[in-house]
Amino acid sequence: MKKVAILGASGYTGSELMRLVLKHSQLELVAVSSEKYAGMSVETVFPALTGSLTLNFHPLSERGPLDEAEYVFLALPHKEAMEVVPGLIKEGKKVIDLSADFRLRKPEIYEAWYQKHTAPDLLESAVYGLTEINREKIKRGQLIANPGCYPTAVLLGLIPAVKNGLINLSTIIVDAKSGVTGAGRNPVLSSLFAEVNEGVKPYKVGAHQHTPEIEQELGLAANSDIEIVFTPHLIPMNRGILVTAYGTLTQKMTSAEVFEVYKSFYQSDIFVRICPESLFPSTNQVKGSNYCDLGIAVDKRTNRLIIMGAIDNLLKGASGQALQNMNVMAGFDESEGIDQLPLFP
Amino acid sequence: MKKVAILGASGYTGSELMRLVLKHSQLELVAVSSEKYAGMSVETVFPALTGSLTLNFHPLSERGPLDEAEYVFLALPHKEAMEVVPGLIKEGKKVIDLSADFRLRKPEIYEAWYQKHTAPDLLESAVYGLTEINREKIKRGQLIANPGCYPTAVLLGLIPAVKNGLINLSTIIVDAKSGVTGAGRNPVLSSLFAEVNEGVKPYKVGAHQHTPEIEQELGLAANSDIEIVFTPHLIPMNRGILVTAYGTLTQKMTSAEVFEVYKSFYQSDIFVRICPESLFPSTNQVKGSNYCDLGIAVDKRTNRLIIMGAIDNLLKGASGQALQNMNVMAGFDESEGIDQLPLFP
Amino acid sequence: MKKVAILGASGYTGSELMRLVLKHSQLELVAVSSEKYAGMSVETVFPALTGSLTLNFHPLSERGPLDEAEYVFLALPHKEAMEVVPGLIKEGKKVIDLSADFRLRKPEIYEAWYQKHTAPDLLESAVYGLTEINREKIKRGQLIANPGCYPTAVLLGLIPAVKNGLINLSTIIVDAKSGVTGAGRNPVLSSLFAEVNEGVKPYKVGAHQHTPEIEQELGLAANSDIEIVFTPHLIPMNRGILVTAYGTLTQKMTSAEVFEVYKSFYQSDIFVRICPESLFPSTNQVKGSNYCDLGIAVDKRTNRLIIMGAIDNLLKGASGQALQNMNVMAGFDESEGIDQLPLFP
Amino acid sequence: MKKVAILGASGYTGSELMRLVLKHSQLELVAVSSEKYAGMSVETVFPALTGSLTLNFHPLSERGPLDEAEYVFLALPHKEAMEVVPGLIKEGKKVIDLSADFRLRKPEIYEAWYQKHTAPDLLESAVYGLTEINREKIKRGQLIANPGCYPTAVLLGLIPAVKNGLINLSTIIVDAKSGVTGAGRNPVLSSLFAEVNEGVKPYKVGAHQHTPEIEQELGLAANSDIEIVFTPHLIPMNRGILVTAYGTLTQKMTSAEVFEVYKSFYQSDIFVRICPESLFPSTNQVKGSNYCDLGIAVDKRTNRLIIMGAIDNLLKGASGQALQNMNVMAGFDESEGIDQLPLFP
Repeated sequence: MKKVAILGASGYTGSELMRLVLKHSQLELVAVSSEKYAGMSVETVFPALTGSLTLNFHPLSERGPLDEAEYVFLALPHKEAMEVVPGLIKEGKKVIDLSADFRLRKPEIYEAWYQKHTAPDLLESAVYGLTEINREKIKRGQLIANPGCYPTAVLLGLIPAVKNGLINLSTIIVDAKSGVTGAGRNPVLSSLFAEVNEGVKPYKVGAHQHTPEIEQELGLAANSDIEIVFTPHLIPMNRGILVTAYGTLTQKMTSAEVFEVYKSFYQSDIFVRICPESLFPSTNQVKGSNYCDLGIAVDKRTNRLIIMGAIDNLLKGASGQALQNMNVMAGFDESEGIDQLPLFP
Repeated sequence: MKKVAILGASGYTGSELMRLVLKHSQLELVAVSSEKYAGMSVETVFPALTGSLTLNFHPLSERGPLDEAEYVFLALPHKEAMEVVPGLIKEGKKVIDLSADFRLRKPEIYEAWYQKHTAPDLLESAVYGLTEINREKIKRGQLIANPGCYPTAVLLGLIPAVKNGLINLSTIIVDAKSGVTGAGRNPVLSSLFAEVNEGVKPYKVGAHQHTPEIEQELGLAANSDIEIVFTPHLIPMNRGILVTAYGTLTQKMTSAEVFEVYKSFYQSDIFVRICPESLFPSTNQVKGSNYCDLGIAVDKRTNRLIIMGAIDNLLKGASGQALQNMNVMAGFDESEGIDQLPLFP
Repeated sequence: MKKVAILGASGYTGSELMRLVLKHSQLELVAVSSEKYAGMSVETVFPALTGSLTLNFHPLSERGPLDEAEYVFLALPHKEAMEVVPGLIKEGKKVIDLSADFRLRKPEIYEAWYQKHTAPDLLESAVYGLTEINREKIKRGQLIANPGCYPTAVLLGLIPAVKNGLINLSTIIVDAKSGVTGAGRNPVLSSLFAEVNEGVKPYKVGAHQHTPEIEQELGLAANSDIEIVFTPHLIPMNRGILVTAYGTLTQKMTSAEVFEVYKSFYQSDIFVRICPESLFPSTNQVKGSNYCDLGIAVDKRTNRLIIMGAIDNLLKGASGQALQNMNVMAGFDESEGIDQLPLFP
Repeated sequence: MKKVAILGASGYTGSELMRLVLKHSQLELVAVSSEKYAGMSVETVFPALTGSLTLNFHPLSERGPLDEAEYVFLALPHKEAMEVVPGLIKEGKKVIDLSADFRLRKPEIYEAWYQKHTAPDLLESAVYGLTEINREKIKRGQLIANPGCYPTAVLLGLIPAVKNGLINLSTIIVDAKSGVTGAGRNPVLSSLFAEVNEGVKPYKVGAHQHTPEIEQELGLAANSDIEIVFTPHLIPMNRGILVTAYGTLTQKMTSAEVFEVYKSFYQSDIFVRICPESLFPSTNQVKGSNYCDLGIAVDKRTNRLIIMGAIDNLLKGASGQALQNMNVMAGFDESEGIDQLPLFP
């Protein structure tokens, strides 16, 4: 049994982590932090968890509850994470950070899209936690930068194509659709039910902070600089990200041939499922699971490859993958505690 | 390991059973039937289950696939179930029937609300599978009549009040709200997205076939005939039933006193959670779990007891309870395979 | 052409009033107030209205913009309304107040459910603006207390029964369901998409502030004191209230007989539609319209009358009825500007 | 007053047409057809319309009801439309056909994407009813081929760019998102609430029948052959289409410069609204209205133009535009009967 703590446990990714950790056969949850609900019992804040734990939230300033924890998950907003991580690393804890603070290797890029970085010396040793791609590094890492929700779906979808030279790197366009939990649990006007329902809208067009993260990792896969177009949209649903990515094929290929490349690439990855030809993924077929479903189409008329990917943004897009990484680090079965089948419908 | 079969596995309760059985540590799924999809692989029909099984649907007329099964779940429409059950019983199989066919003890009542009963001789030995109430009988039963979704929530909510004489039996009014999966997976106009979305409507007012089932079991608890008002409503959501039940108190009581009655009644039942005073249940706090959350309020001004109950209609209201009953029959831990925490949000 | 102003125009009822007034053939919108968006153009805050007006929001402290207005609609929160109304009345303006501040005739009841009343002397002359019931008084009124959303549906549903002595007054139970816009446009956790979606929950059980308003008006209709049970529920949809009301019949009646009573009661009221026997109202059949659809059922087994009513909470439940009242006051056709057919689906 | 008939009036576009025609000040609805509901009153099938008409549906085989009609709207499925249109044309009626049957000028292209064309001789005189582009031809037309829902949004979005040579014609990618009413009112599994809710999915990838329609009209605007990538997605909402279209700029431009091109292009078109810079359209800001809202972004990093368009698929995407075309044909004000402001929220 490993002891774990979750910092920032009262948002959607934090509560999802609690839900998963509580049913993980090898883990014991020893501490959960929240500024807003400090001192309150978790059950009061999350009635759904009633009966499964007796912890109270503690404020971040109280570090005592963390003493026992060997693994610490951070579900804090970016900026807050980088203030806490260096201390945890010094104490020798293993850290899985769900914020963006340690995902970008170059501090200047971080600072162009976010703000000043206060712990740049940790960037080099941080491992980008896209499990299927970096499994070996994760095994040996102390600080895992858990990928963003959009990047997870985009990268799992595009890396096989990019790595195998299937598409022209300057032609990549990613059109992404996300459920509302992606915007977090802060009470803001734009997340109100009546503002979101019956609406679909693009946001941060050409300006979303996940763009450099995607470009960095695609670039590593391609061994070349890459710039992409990335357009996120908000969809009236709780969970789920669907990514539709377009690229011009470098040579004529059938979808069956592309299918073989992907099948082979992910042959040992149980959480990536490739849809049969002419079938496409849907977010409601992965909801509540750690799966990433990929669909492949070749538009012969225009010689374009179209890759579609669906994930549950709170599982494979955040807390599920964080636990998957922890399983890898601890030497557990990779699917331990995250092998739920999708809750359909 | 017990071998199980599911008949009528391509509806929502059937596919939910598959999902649960596949992750149950003591069960092996050996056969699944469907007329509509006979011969097709389950994965094709339910992409969500891809990677977790390799079965094809078989038609009911093919009985071979059932040979091995020790336990058979029926998720068939009523009428079809009673045509199949007698044969299974004769073969010595344990049967958990999710249809309405064996829930009513008196064939004449069944026939008044449904149609002619073709296996009335089995009614006496059938056990009404409301686990918390009939656990001991279920243990010894061969044929379990799994309760309806509405009756499960209503009965768990009202039996403690009725059994303890808290309310006047002639004053019971039940106003119930259900998500759309309760209407099944048949493609009918009234279940279309655009017909349901942004709408709330009552249906079968004073005429819903779950009325006699509720009255029968409440009557048994009260040891007296009971007639209730029961009004179901359709709500634009996938899963969930919320029941709001009203009765006039036989004597003045505080909600705290009623709370104690309920707390004591359900003290050994892990799937029933009583909300703290002045908190009320919500369907999204039980979604994806086998919990029944109960809320209690006393309206002092009018001396009414108000009991609220929330369940996931596909779990505790159908397939989850079916598995709970099977666990009881087989001597497994009662929560084996159905101990998922609610998927919130 | 009458000139009108709307105070508190940036909430959902306020913006709905703008939408309606802008298309009313006899009205000119001259001023709209908002503290939050003071100085900003309406189009920026409500892109839906782009192209239809050029006004900026003004803060309440600026009274100049109101000078021209003959009619003033208040869509302010309760408490704020009663601070503004006395001044407007003194200036001779006609006031339609959508808040609760002038609905209750007795200040002590207002104070028991809300807070201290600061303008109790206006309570006597205020007219309760349930148009179908108080049309003549509204015609002559200067201050109209526009009914609450729940009371509108409940009262239109129950007044004919109560006035005609059809039901026992001590047996009334009202179970109500509302869409999320009823909670207003404030960014609070409980109104977030992901908190509301896939959930149904009761709230303020036995304690909702619309209870005394309903009791007052039902009591006037019955000429007798009445206490009711009132349980509101939150439903995952934008608009709509469905009320299901129960009462014990004072004598045996068929639903056809009750139907005749209602048909006759509302024979001259174009906004009340009585559903044919065995058909029931649904909120998505009135969405975007000023209709109140009523359904009638008699449960013979238990001798209960069940009245169901559906309205769009932002139209007949708030801004539509406010305009209906203004039409009556100004001598316009009662349906002018609010004769839209429901937007289904 | 002009007399109009609607054939195929029991689907979503047909009932939307009824709703609009009934409130149009210059029109009288004299006949509505439906095979499924022939002989039934419209009110029974569409309770939302109760009180606004007294017509019964007639079967298509009965032609008597059409005698009086001067204008006939066809909301029939494709193939059925082309069987009826030739007769109507011969009788001298003005026909607005909402099906796809007369949209494609070349029968061989129609036949490649649909089926054999049985009235190819009418293709030449049919006018493609994208009002803003073909207003003059529509004025003089007898047979108007009303555009598809997707093509309306895509073409209004891209024609100004294509006509002004802003983008490279071989780089166009259109990613489109539609609400469920776009799939019609047929009771099919894929349109069920529980299948659609909480899901986003692409469909007919590279194979949607609106592709050639878009290519034909874009090609006419560019005076050059064009092939595009077109990917439609299904979104869990009733109404609305959002289109996100990508093209590589032929020269460097700022979004402000593109904004001026669009502003000028649509300066006399009241139903096209251009969002201010850095604001983007949302379907819930046009719901229930005939508006098409366009958003413009230039991604400087990749030199891509991104055009976003939002419409209500049942209004500007079908029935609203059909009425707009009829207004043009009859010499009415272009916005008569379709000047409703969006129903937000």
